[in-house]
This record gives sequence, C-alpha cells and structure tokens, in this order.
Amino acid sequence: MILETKKVFFDEPLYLESGRVLKPYEVIYETYGTLNSDKSNVILVTHALSGSHHVAGTYEGDRKAGWWDGFIGDGKAVDTTKFFVICMNNIGSCFGSTSPMSINPATNKPYRLKFPVLTISDIVKAQVRVLKSLGITELHAVIGGSMGGMQALCYAVEYPTFAKHIFMLAATAYTRPWAIAYNKITIEAIRNDPDFKDGNYESEDIKENGLKGLALGRMAGHISYLSNDSMDMKFGRRYVEQDGLYELFGRFEVERYLEYNGYSFPKYFDPLSYLYIIKTMNIFNAARGSDTLADSLAKIKTKLHFYSFSGDLLFKPEEMEEIYEIMVANGQGDLVDYTMIESNYGHDAFLVELDKFDFMIKEILES
Amino acid sequence: MILETKKVFFDEPLYLESGRVLKPYEVIYETYGTLNSDKSNVILVTHALSGSHHVAGTYEGDRKAGWWDGFIGDGKAVDTTKFFVICMNNIGSCFGSTSPMSINPATNKPYRLKFPVLTISDIVKAQVRVLKSLGITELHAVIGGSMGGMQALCYAVEYPTFAKHIFMLAATAYTRPWAIAYNKITIEAIRNDPDFKDGNYESEDIKENGLKGLALGRMAGHISYLSNDSMDMKFGRRYVEQDGLYELFGRFEVERYLEYNGYSFPKYFDPLSYLYIIKTMNIFNAARGSDTLADSLAKIKTKLHFYSFSGDLLFKPEEMEEIYEIMVANGQGDLVDYTMIESNYGHDAFLVELDKFDFMIKEILES
Repeated sequence: MILETKKVFFDEPLYLESGRVLKPYEVIYETYGTLNSDKSNVILVTHALSGSHHVAGTYEGDRKAGWWDGFIGDGKAVDTTKFFVICMNNIGSCFGSTSPMSINPATNKPYRLKFPVLTISDIVKAQVRVLKSLGITELHAVIGGSMGGMQALCYAVEYPTFAKHIFMLAATAYTRPWAIAYNKITIEAIRNDPDFKDGNYESEDIKENGLKGLALGRMAGHISYLSNDSMDMKFGRRYVEQDGLYELFGRFEVERYLEYNGYSFPKYFDPLSYLYIIKTMNIFNAARGSDTLADSLAKIKTKLHFYSFSGDLLFKPEEMEEIYEIMVANGQGDLVDYTMIESNYGHDAFLVELDKFDFMIKEILES
Repeated sequence: MILETKKVFFDEPLYLESGRVLKPYEVIYETYGTLNSDKSNVILVTHALSGSHHVAGTYEGDRKAGWWDGFIGDGKAVDTTKFFVICMNNIGSCFGSTSPMSINPATNKPYRLKFPVLTISDIVKAQVRVLKSLGITELHAVIGGSMGGMQALCYAVEYPTFAKHIFMLAATAYTRPWAIAYNKITIEAIRNDPDFKDGNYESEDIKENGLKGLALGRMAGHISYLSNDSMDMKFGRRYVEQDGLYELFGRFEVERYLEYNGYSFPKYFDPLSYLYIIKTMNIFNAARGSDTLADSLAKIKTKLHFYSFSGDLLFKPEEMEEIYEIMVANGQGDLVDYTMIESNYGHDAFLVELDKFDFMIKEILES
C-alpha cells in the first residue's frame, strides 16, 4: 500500500460559522492507494475526537498501525488497491493541522484561548478546500464514526451531491445532554488543573506526562465509550493488587484500565485542542440553519448508510434510527438504509467490531 | 413529630472486617416518633453515600428538610405517629460520627489516611451496637436505598432474625465495574487536587469552597444518578448563555446543573470521608464469606422487599432481580418480593419518585 503524508497551506480566509475567520490555515493529510485518472475513486475517511490523519498503515519504525488499519488497506473492506483513500487531521486537532497552539498572525504567539470556536461544518469546509486543491470534485464515499460520523452527515446535508455514498457509524444528528455531561467533566478537569494556567501552559510545564486534568477527563470519556457488558467481560470485579480489598487505594482492574488510558493520553494530546474539539461535538446539530431536522435532512440527495451499535451508550442506536425514520417520512427512503449491529462493545464497537460491518460497507463500495 | 439528635460514645473496640480495630468511636443519630414500651416499633433507616442521620423533619431556622422527609413523618408512608424511626450517620461519614478526620488516639491527630478501611458490614455492626445500647434487640424494619440498600441487605444476611422486614431500594448485591469506574474519577480527581496534599489538607486551605477535586468527582457521580430520559426532560439542549453557541465556555443547561451540584457539594462534605465511603461501596459484595452469593443469601430468614427503578444506570434493575431470582431458586420465594418501578429519573428515583412506591411500603409496614 502506498502511504503518503502531506500538508497543504491556505492563505485565503476560511469563513467560520461563528462569523470569525481563520487565516492562514493548514491541513495535514494522508493518502493510501492511487488516484485514478478521472479522480473518481476517492474515499474520504473522517476521524473522531482523538483520531488523526494516520488512519491506516504503519510508519517505518513504528509498532502501531493507523487507527482503522483493520478496515482500510490492500484487499481490506476499504480496498486501497481499488480506491484512493484520504484522511485529514481536522483543523483544531493537534496532529499537524491548524490548532489553538498554532501561531496567531495578529500576535505572533499561539492562539490558545483566542482560537475561534469551530463547528463540524467548519471542519468539513476546510476538508472540501483540500480536496478541491487536489482537483477532487466528487467523492466515491465519505466514511466516519463518532465525531467522524457527524462530519459524514454534514457532507450529506451541506454538500448534497459531492459524495456518492455516505457511511455514518456510531454518531448522532445532535449531541444529547449525557454526551455533553461527560464532556463537562473534561472541561472542568482541564480548567481546574493549576498547570492549565487558563490556557497559558508552557509545553515545558507539562512535558513529562501532559496535563493531568486532561487525563481525568479522558477517563470520564472512556466510561462512555464502554458498555456495561464490555466492562463485565473485560474487568468484572477483579483486583489488580492482591491485598486491594482492605487498602484504601487498592485497585480493581477497571480502575487500572482507566488509569492507563487516562494518563497515557495527555502525553500525546493537547488540552486546548481537546477543549475545542469537544466543543464542536457539543454544539453539533444537523438541524441548525433549518426550521426542523426534517427540513435539513430533506436536502440530502446522496445514498446514506447508517450503522449503530446496540450497546453504544454515548450515541445510542435510537439517535441514528431517528435520522433514518425522518428521512423515510420525508420520502427519502430510497436513499437510506439503517443497520443496528448487535455488539457488547459499546461506542468503541465501530473501532473494534469491524468484522460485524466491514463486509457490508465493502459490498456497497464495490457495487 | 418529635425529632431528637443524640450521640453515643463507645470505648470498647469495634473489630473491623479488615482485621483492624476502631477504638473509641461514636455515632450520631436522630430519632423520630416515640419508642413504644416493648420496643417493638423501631424502624431503622440507612443512608446513602452523601446522606446523613437527618432523614426527616426540619431543624429550627433551617429551610431544608431531611433528605427523605417526603417519605417519613407523621401520617406519611413511614408513619412517625406509629413507628419510632432511627437514622444514624454512618461511621466514616462526616456529619458527626467517627470519621477519617476524628482524632486518632495513637497520635492525637486526625486519622486522615491512617483511618482503617471500613466495609458495609462494619458500618452495620456499629449501628447494631447503637441499637443494643438503646435496648433495642429487634427491628420492625430496615429501609435503605443505594448504599443504604447495601446496608439493608447486609442486615438480612448477617443478622437474619434481627428485623421483621427489610426494604432494599436501588441497590445491588455487589458493585459492578461501571459503578467502580465512576468512583475512579472521584478518587483520581481528589488525589490529583494539589490542595488535597495526600490527605493532609488543612480545613483553612479549603475553607471557602471545599476541595475542587471532590466537586469534579461529584459531577461524575451525578451523571450516574440521572438517566438519559431525565436529562432529556430536565435539560435537553438548552443553553444557559444566549450566546453560548460560539463561545468556547458557553454552557448548556446540563453543564450548569453539574456545576451547581458539583461545586456546592464540597462545601459541606469532607473529601477523606468521601474516599472512605466510596471504598465501602466499591468492595461491597454480599457473597463475601460464603462460597457463592446463593449460599450467602440462603442465610436470610426475614422478609425482603426489593424495589428497583427502570432507568437506574448505576444499580441496574437486573442487579436486584438477580438477588430475587437466586432466593427463589434457593427455595426462599415466600420471603421475597421484587418490584421494578417504571421511572425516568434514573438512580435518583428512590429519592424523588416516592409516590410510585411509598404506598407499597406503608402497606407492608402496617400490615
């Protein structure tokens, strides 16, 4: 598989939904496979909250493959011998695209809390610019899960004929209060951390382990990514320490899992980026700009394929079913299909239960 | 209603499940109504994580009544014209009974992290001592919800003939990993708070607002006390600030709710007490000391009444149903009844949906 990482710089302004402007900005992206001569084999993959453009393949010297490597590659469900796959690091994120830690041209210092609030729509707008800069004016498909699924839905509503197929996994048309509540723990944990310094932390201060407050918030996030069944299966009531029972800080396995995933995260993720990204998720609402969600969805002209997961506690199956049912009621039944996949893996299922849905996506992509 | 607050001091040692000893210790408690001549009208109410002995009535000059005041009082479901109700502040808690901030006689300083780990069984043992000191050798009933329900079940297993009726609401026989996971956020948030100082905080340091880390943990707790439906009903996607949409820290109503309940909590609750109490919940397991939960439950000789709530995400209905089913399989079907109450209020339902179950409890108590 051919894997290329590139960066594109834009000097023209990106007009944001908030009325603010981002200028200049840049987007880092990765491509897999070969673009065909008429540029008709492009599949865009959109990433989730903590994801990056590195969606597949393994960098030289790296042990870990891209975050959806089981799904994308030569001969895989998203077959890179047939398709040219592109994944971009979202603006606002911290893996190379313009983010709150980028230089604010007005001050020649990092934006930090002066960075403008972004929306899913803004992120998608920036992606479309990148695609156009590559001469890509149509997509074979957009595929995204979780926050990536929000972006996918945004393509469907705002760019009705841009993509032939849109796959939305484990996502929602508007974020519900429980998802906002989990994010609230993160917001407060970051802001209360004295090392955050109101956004003015120096990389030096948090060099070793990153910001502890972000670790805490990430632990809260992980609770929402799991399901009751997956926790029972993975951890049960097993202790880490043999004498953990009567030691105040003796730990259960589930606690070690949260510690490990929580504290390792801020080592590679920036807290300001995290705050800006969860904001885009909190305020995502596919109905915005229309009177009703039904009116908004009525704009869709492309084929939309929904996959929800039965144990998903963050974006519950009912949330995607609602989108499907509204579209059917709108008379758009020929455009949509909805599959709820039985899974014990909670929200994480879209990343770990590939074999339950990848063949369905492959069939559609190659039909 | 006659309301009395008293404290009882014990100089004899309390032998704890851990093998450690608590000596001396004291327990503060409140009583409502009048003890009859043969002391046969006693109802013990056991409190939950953040509760206290002040379960009913209103103190002079206070605006807020006790935490289960709608349920307990003259003419109410637990009728204090008929019954003598007693509620004790659990040892380990911070409302007047012996706690981690009590003086350790070995050092003449507060115990802090030298306080012994307590279990639900230890808490109940201390309660039984108080009752015996009052000459009470039998109970008409024990009633408790959440952690109070764990205590109620503990009475059933460990003191099989002590109470005539035991009512267990919104609780479990053993804490599942998701409940432990929510508590983990609290543990990490408290320990990471620089003001916690490894348990050596001075009251002066946190005088104004209490420990912020505890506030964070309490927010995580509140997510688990609500349900998806209750969040949709209470908050939906409403904003607090009109221009909240494009302001990074603009808040949704659900965020304000968590802020309010989170940050007000540490003003009256001690962080070390909180750590010790959630530990008792994490390690609660009614099967401990027996080969199986079925063996443990087989000891029960009293009438046990279970009430679960359909939307409870913390202690799910299945958890109490399991206890009921094991007892039925044990041939104890004549001792138990199980009711699942339809409610959108999540775990909090046992405190707020009184009219859905109080009449059932009243009927049993007065039959």
